[in-house]
Amino acid sequence: MKLHNYFRSSTSYRVRIALALKGLAYDYVAYHLRKGEQRGAAYLALNPQGLVPTLQTDDGALLPQSLAIVEYLDELQPDPPLLPATPLERARVRSLAYAVACDIHPVNNLRVLQYLVDPLGHDAAVQGEWFRHWVAVEFAALEKRLTEEPGTGRFCHGDSPGLADICLVPQVVNGRRFDCDMTPYPTIRRIHEACMAIPAFAEAAPERQPDAET
Amino acid sequence: MKLHNYFRSSTSYRVRIALALKGLAYDYVAYHLRKGEQRGAAYLALNPQGLVPTLQTDDGALLPQSLAIVEYLDELQPDPPLLPATPLERARVRSLAYAVACDIHPVNNLRVLQYLVDPLGHDAAVQGEWFRHWVAVEFAALEKRLTEEPGTGRFCHGDSPGLADICLVPQVVNGRRFDCDMTPYPTIRRIHEACMAIPAFAEAAPERQPDAET
Repeated sequence: MKLHNYFRSSTSYRVRIALALKGLAYDYVAYHLRKGEQRGAAYLALNPQGLVPTLQTDDGALLPQSLAIVEYLDELQPDPPLLPATPLERARVRSLAYAVACDIHPVNNLRVLQYLVDPLGHDAAVQGEWFRHWVAVEFAALEKRLTEEPGTGRFCHGDSPGLADICLVPQVVNGRRFDCDMTPYPTIRRIHEACMAIPAFAEAAPERQPDAET
Repeated sequence: MKLHNYFRSSTSYRVRIALALKGLAYDYVAYHLRKGEQRGAAYLALNPQGLVPTLQTDDGALLPQSLAIVEYLDELQPDPPLLPATPLERARVRSLAYAVACDIHPVNNLRVLQYLVDPLGHDAAVQGEWFRHWVAVEFAALEKRLTEEPGTGRFCHGDSPGLADICLVPQVVNGRRFDCDMTPYPTIRRIHEACMAIPAFAEAAPERQPDAET
């Protein structure tokens, strides 16, 4: 398999964690987002959206969208499972994952932040406030759920890492780059630390990738 | 079951289509988003995010996040299936669904449009351009995939409606309210029309709901 991705992309990071948890080897192909390589002809031929990541299977199938890839990997190789056993539990885990993947990440994506500057004419300070606003609104709700719902364990659901943790960790890492205050979210911080103690999460981190920059 | 939702919310609309396709009866509970009822204490007790929809099962379980609910309904009652049979096909359908649910809808959600006005100080014209920009960028990519990929049939995947159609139709309907030009997307328009010919899609439409306003 080949993973077409970028070290700092949090959606790429999700897929790297899933591949590592599953113990699946892959070739790492990098596209530099800040240089616009994801909008070059070579990448658009793989993925018309021009968004990373894309997983290319050994048979040449091209799979876009990080969460679709993670669900695919979980079906392809069910052990260790990234979703729990019952429909209600799976709905909980997916809802926690989507709270990050639908309600935080897309609004704070690079191209949206760039639109605030051009054409809207705002500066980096407004970009930063925008980013932190959506993280704060959603992390407050997520913290409440993770703290109060009985399904939470060492990880977002129970005592094994899964789909929700795979979305949460890159969002926490991304938030740090924009100076998000994590003080109000002790449960999110605790789960993040538990994840980072697992080699699959640590090895998937942006700074460990071949295209990493400081 | 109870569906806590709003007639015009496109995420609510997704769940209504899924419930109708599955033939599942439910009580309709309305929250008026423009009046902020989704941020009132009654709704926040059901859903700390303050976002519709929430599905409440007969046992009292509370399920947030439209796509988590649709996957749950598909597991609870597999007939008719909303996802195809193989992992690769399921990945395709989920990736088409997420192209709408992650990359268009969240960026154009009501609260994001409101943030453009307050605090950012823009007017309705900028809101409209913002909305149409993200629809145009993503519908162009989606049109290309749906036109070129062999998996497309009468619907987004094959000849039965599924998860991708459930996301696409409310996005098309939403786009019309913001005067999105649909001319460049003949395949999307064709699939939308095929869906609207199915009673489950037609009955789930905003204007058919008890809280509908003109």
